[in-house]
Amino acid sequence: MAIGIGLIGTGFMGKAHALAYRSARAIMADVPEARLSVLCDMPMDRADAMASQLGFDRATDDWTALVADPDVDIVCITTPNGLHREMALAAIAAGKNVHCEKPLALSLEDAEVMAAAAREAGSSTLVGYNYIHNPAVTHAQRLIADGRIGRPVHFRGWVDEDYQADPEFAWTWRSTRSEAGLGALGDLGCHLVSMSHLLMGPIESVLADTQIAHATRPLPDGSGRGTVENEDTASALVRYASGAQGTLCTSRSAWGRKNKLDWEVHGTRGMITFSQERLNELRLYVNDGPKAEQGFCTILTGPDHPPYGAFCPAPGHQLGFGDLKTIEATAFLRAISTETSAYPDFTDALAFEQVIHAIDTSAREGRRVSL
Amino acid sequence: MAIGIGLIGTGFMGKAHALAYRSARAIMADVPEARLSVLCDMPMDRADAMASQLGFDRATDDWTALVADPDVDIVCITTPNGLHREMALAAIAAGKNVHCEKPLALSLEDAEVMAAAAREAGSSTLVGYNYIHNPAVTHAQRLIADGRIGRPVHFRGWVDEDYQADPEFAWTWRSTRSEAGLGALGDLGCHLVSMSHLLMGPIESVLADTQIAHATRPLPDGSGRGTVENEDTASALVRYASGAQGTLCTSRSAWGRKNKLDWEVHGTRGMITFSQERLNELRLYVNDGPKAEQGFCTILTGPDHPPYGAFCPAPGHQLGFGDLKTIEATAFLRAISTETSAYPDFTDALAFEQVIHAIDTSAREGRRVSL
Amino acid sequence: MAIGIGLIGTGFMGKAHALAYRSARAIMADVPEARLSVLCDMPMDRADAMASQLGFDRATDDWTALVADPDVDIVCITTPNGLHREMALAAIAAGKNVHCEKPLALSLEDAEVMAAAAREAGSSTLVGYNYIHNPAVTHAQRLIADGRIGRPVHFRGWVDEDYQADPEFAWTWRSTRSEAGLGALGDLGCHLVSMSHLLMGPIESVLADTQIAHATRPLPDGSGRGTVENEDTASALVRYASGAQGTLCTSRSAWGRKNKLDWEVHGTRGMITFSQERLNELRLYVNDGPKAEQGFCTILTGPDHPPYGAFCPAPGHQLGFGDLKTIEATAFLRAISTETSAYPDFTDALAFEQVIHAIDTSAREGRRVSL
Amino acid sequence: MAIGIGLIGTGFMGKAHALAYRSARAIMADVPEARLSVLCDMPMDRADAMASQLGFDRATDDWTALVADPDVDIVCITTPNGLHREMALAAIAAGKNVHCEKPLALSLEDAEVMAAAAREAGSSTLVGYNYIHNPAVTHAQRLIADGRIGRPVHFRGWVDEDYQADPEFAWTWRSTRSEAGLGALGDLGCHLVSMSHLLMGPIESVLADTQIAHATRPLPDGSGRGTVENEDTASALVRYASGAQGTLCTSRSAWGRKNKLDWEVHGTRGMITFSQERLNELRLYVNDGPKAEQGFCTILTGPDHPPYGAFCPAPGHQLGFGDLKTIEATAFLRAISTETSAYPDFTDALAFEQVIHAIDTSAREGRRVSL
Repeated sequence: MAIGIGLIGTGFMGKAHALAYRSARAIMADVPEARLSVLCDMPMDRADAMASQLGFDRATDDWTALVADPDVDIVCITTPNGLHREMALAAIAAGKNVHCEKPLALSLEDAEVMAAAAREAGSSTLVGYNYIHNPAVTHAQRLIADGRIGRPVHFRGWVDEDYQADPEFAWTWRSTRSEAGLGALGDLGCHLVSMSHLLMGPIESVLADTQIAHATRPLPDGSGRGTVENEDTASALVRYASGAQGTLCTSRSAWGRKNKLDWEVHGTRGMITFSQERLNELRLYVNDGPKAEQGFCTILTGPDHPPYGAFCPAPGHQLGFGDLKTIEATAFLRAISTETSAYPDFTDALAFEQVIHAIDTSAREGRRVSL
Repeated sequence: MAIGIGLIGTGFMGKAHALAYRSARAIMADVPEARLSVLCDMPMDRADAMASQLGFDRATDDWTALVADPDVDIVCITTPNGLHREMALAAIAAGKNVHCEKPLALSLEDAEVMAAAAREAGSSTLVGYNYIHNPAVTHAQRLIADGRIGRPVHFRGWVDEDYQADPEFAWTWRSTRSEAGLGALGDLGCHLVSMSHLLMGPIESVLADTQIAHATRPLPDGSGRGTVENEDTASALVRYASGAQGTLCTSRSAWGRKNKLDWEVHGTRGMITFSQERLNELRLYVNDGPKAEQGFCTILTGPDHPPYGAFCPAPGHQLGFGDLKTIEATAFLRAISTETSAYPDFTDALAFEQVIHAIDTSAREGRRVSL
Repeated sequence: MAIGIGLIGTGFMGKAHALAYRSARAIMADVPEARLSVLCDMPMDRADAMASQLGFDRATDDWTALVADPDVDIVCITTPNGLHREMALAAIAAGKNVHCEKPLALSLEDAEVMAAAAREAGSSTLVGYNYIHNPAVTHAQRLIADGRIGRPVHFRGWVDEDYQADPEFAWTWRSTRSEAGLGALGDLGCHLVSMSHLLMGPIESVLADTQIAHATRPLPDGSGRGTVENEDTASALVRYASGAQGTLCTSRSAWGRKNKLDWEVHGTRGMITFSQERLNELRLYVNDGPKAEQGFCTILTGPDHPPYGAFCPAPGHQLGFGDLKTIEATAFLRAISTETSAYPDFTDALAFEQVIHAIDTSAREGRRVSL
Repeated sequence: MAIGIGLIGTGFMGKAHALAYRSARAIMADVPEARLSVLCDMPMDRADAMASQLGFDRATDDWTALVADPDVDIVCITTPNGLHREMALAAIAAGKNVHCEKPLALSLEDAEVMAAAAREAGSSTLVGYNYIHNPAVTHAQRLIADGRIGRPVHFRGWVDEDYQADPEFAWTWRSTRSEAGLGALGDLGCHLVSMSHLLMGPIESVLADTQIAHATRPLPDGSGRGTVENEDTASALVRYASGAQGTLCTSRSAWGRKNKLDWEVHGTRGMITFSQERLNELRLYVNDGPKAEQGFCTILTGPDHPPYGAFCPAPGHQLGFGDLKTIEATAFLRAISTETSAYPDFTDALAFEQVIHAIDTSAREGRRVSL
């Protein structure tokens, strides 16, 4: 019996969800089939066209109908962040499993309500922190857990893009706190926090600064320039519950960075580094063997780094962005079918997002903020 | 009306074909839907299991039935190379379109027969030289065609893996010329020739050497060591019809190389280089602007390099191996629906494979071989 | 008339000074000859041996004699940091020019006294921030000054080594604040600040955290473990006088990093990045030309990046660490002969070192510290 | 008693020799002092100026006087290749040690005469194949000798620059076979052969092709275009005495390559690769340990790779081109003082240069040439 997918939204992430669920079983074999049941978008002809393209059984322009649809087991929410709360709460209330894009919501309060609702309802939930499902990253996680680099003592991470690097890039609602919430932290920073959490465990406190690099942007109607209200860059000094320390940095105005999501874990016996723009590579340095032969080893992912082998039996052939989303969808299908929990669920994601809001608070108030 | 796919073989390439055709329309939008109609493998329970996993309507263990099936518009042949000829000829005779994995056949004679049959029948054919469909590579092709690096005067290419680098890797039928045909040239070298052809045009003559690096390998039954009959490495000095020259090198015994398929095009105004293990990057040097600022530019593919944008609207998010196969399948679906020809068809592929056989001949006879 | 060099200390930096002054004129041509006059080390036989090896006219084990020697025009101070103040003050009092290794002194107070003395005496001074003399770095400085990447809005820098990464590395006086002063900040961090200053101008305030990653180390006499008093890592959020922001990070416990001194300057039109472990390369991204061709350009230094050409007329042949020191010594010889000032002199260096002390203060007091 | 240096020529290589001998003992300690005795160049005022700059005792414009000078122990020959023979024979006849730049001579016949003369006279000689003295390269040599990558079965090498990549670069005597001899092979290719020899042992035969990419070049007097007579590129298939095979390629018309001298050694247990434009790095892959952790290790040279430590006690601080020349000069000073032989002497270098001439012959005659 296939698991029915109801997808709200057909932008970048909507399409990514559809493709991932379409292919999950064909790729992974040992996972339940997903059936693309209902697609919701507006206007209706867009919904129809995308349902046809992506292979959904039917389309709607009424998300409440989708949420109520008995054929829908998983509600995928890929709409603008400000809509996540209402949709997720409705889906939870309707007894659905919810796969929501990150960040959970505009405000931490909304995210808390969502997580609480999911916990109370016992819903299975998953949040779209797709980068942590990369076989290179989960291999790093295993290496660290196995003590390969000793005790992790320091972490550095960066997540940068350049989509707002051009000062003449137009002002949009994304520049407002009321409609968009956080800036680079909400778009990008939370991905980095998810990596940090996976590799280093929870953060205990942050001390941060943020920056609006481009104070105004041209209004799209040509009537002058609008004020940018949310941060272009954010940087935080973090302390982990483990006693480790680190820095987390993000920018949406970093020319040349297309999907930089880089990090390094400093351990007492070695170091691991990773760069998302070369997502099939992991670099490992271990203080082992002759000094004259020590160096960073560039490991190319392959079948020895599961679930790479489900995509391709030959190493070094490279996974892509869409493949990471497929691994994520697989995790949810498995969790639902085995009634276990997927990672990161709403509660896990709330913990990530508390960090980005704490960074924002620290920067605004000029003080260390505890979590 | 969907285009029906009949797939023979469910190994590495079989699965890759299935996944590509499953997703092509969902990703590309403006391409006909493909329907996974019939899957053939042996034994029957394997065929059934894979048909279920990959989403085929039905399974068979009789490839002749698949070829004859009226629901099948495209016959995908992903079986061992020695079987290609018989299957392709039958499919052509049945009036099907044929998507065959590379190389076309064990021997050049077989490949010639296949290409002739396709031409005579007016069949649409496509051969699985998937790497040339990479947006980075087709961007390079455009740059060269536009004269961005001037007149191409020299080419260097390498295609290396390490799957036979271990001297204790067991002897198999792949070590025999009778069953496997060429060694590294057939497995890997032909991919390089496809790149060379795309970027530099046809090769006029070759002067080559080959090497069996591991003369014997342990027999799987433990009874001693078997003789390796085909080449572990091949290297060729080539002259192009354009007057350019170059070198083509391949090895299946190159430790550390997982999918190296690298090349550089030397032009009179610049240079382009590419490395398959970083398939989302192109490096371009142009003799333009201030000397103090000249250098190789690392271009990360994105929506400016079509059809990347069909997979992801954000640059730098990376395509994977499977995505290249989807672009290839898309090309065939489009060709069939518009009754134009796809590239490379059997005749195009024959030209590539004539080169690897000429390299083999040159090496065995110690003389320059013209094409 | 050659400029006489009196060198105190023959360790890593002492030898580097000697080699640099020996070769400066032979390499640069248009710079006064330096004569290696007096070398001071202890004990006397070590001084004699090193004077012979390095080519000094004579040796002494009494640095006060060296400072008083009429043949000495430049006093080079390469002794442990705790000795810099006394020696520099004596040299200034004796009317000498002073070339002192970084950091100026253990404490900021000592550094202030030294800078004040130099200013009052009108001495020519230079501090050994050799990395900023790299032609790649000064080329970056020019590119920024020329507006090639627009207005610099953000800076990130890291300076890491692994010489104290091993938890079992023995405890020494370097672990104490009384004898060694700061830890990673004093050894490494100040180099990064010198880069930041050169490229971004003065820092206005810092908000920082530091970490002792290895709380104790084995005592060399085997009697147990000694307490480490100074920082293994430091991280700072900085605000520049220009309005830009950034982060500065350092670690002496970063496995695999041998001389990482990396930075990136984010501008409104582009980005420049640099990595000291590949000191002959600069990476430049500019939002110019067709989007499909944009990427980071790796510029290899050559004669177009002066004074590279004095070392080698051919590009890409690579300068080494010693060559940077030669450029530094040349700057001082020229400054002295033209009675202009060299950069960075004691006052300039004091500004760098105020930053590392502000970072330390901020970390200890948990508050933003203004400069 | 210092060893007296007589240097003929003050271009790129002349200066490099002077700097290397000036600093050798200061850097290396356990090597005899070299004294810069006599410098020869023309006209006399150039000789005087350079003698002053470089620190020679005296200057001359008569090389025969230099060769006869009793203060001269080593005659360094850095003049155009066509002059090497006469000068070297005179120096050998005068009982001098000879340090000659590569290649030995325009023609193989001249080189043979020189090698024979040196052998007969029992002269100590050295030829300037400086790149093989790189600590990274000699470390690779040790790794191979120790069996770290098993039996070497294949070699690939490239040496490329772009100094003649521009089709409008003016015609000079360097374009003629009579005055310049070989083209890219003589300038660049012989360096690659020296690497190949060091790492793989002697070459037994070659099969090659060459190319004149730019058939004519503008005459400097504006009177039209002159014919280019020697090769812009050369490529060879080589067989080693050991049974290994490989390819050697060179181009002087490869845009973007400034000092590419890259190679890879394929062994039965691993691979080593090197790139001259990153001369302080060696990449090593060994089939050891868990498959999931295998990858190319980037080794940064340091004190564990002698004689790096003589230049700098800290790893990763980078040697430069000049430092390689210093290591070369040191080898000669040591050889002379211990009456042992330096590598490569005239006879060794002759073996390298026989290979480039064999490549030229093979290309002209279209047949495999044995050595």
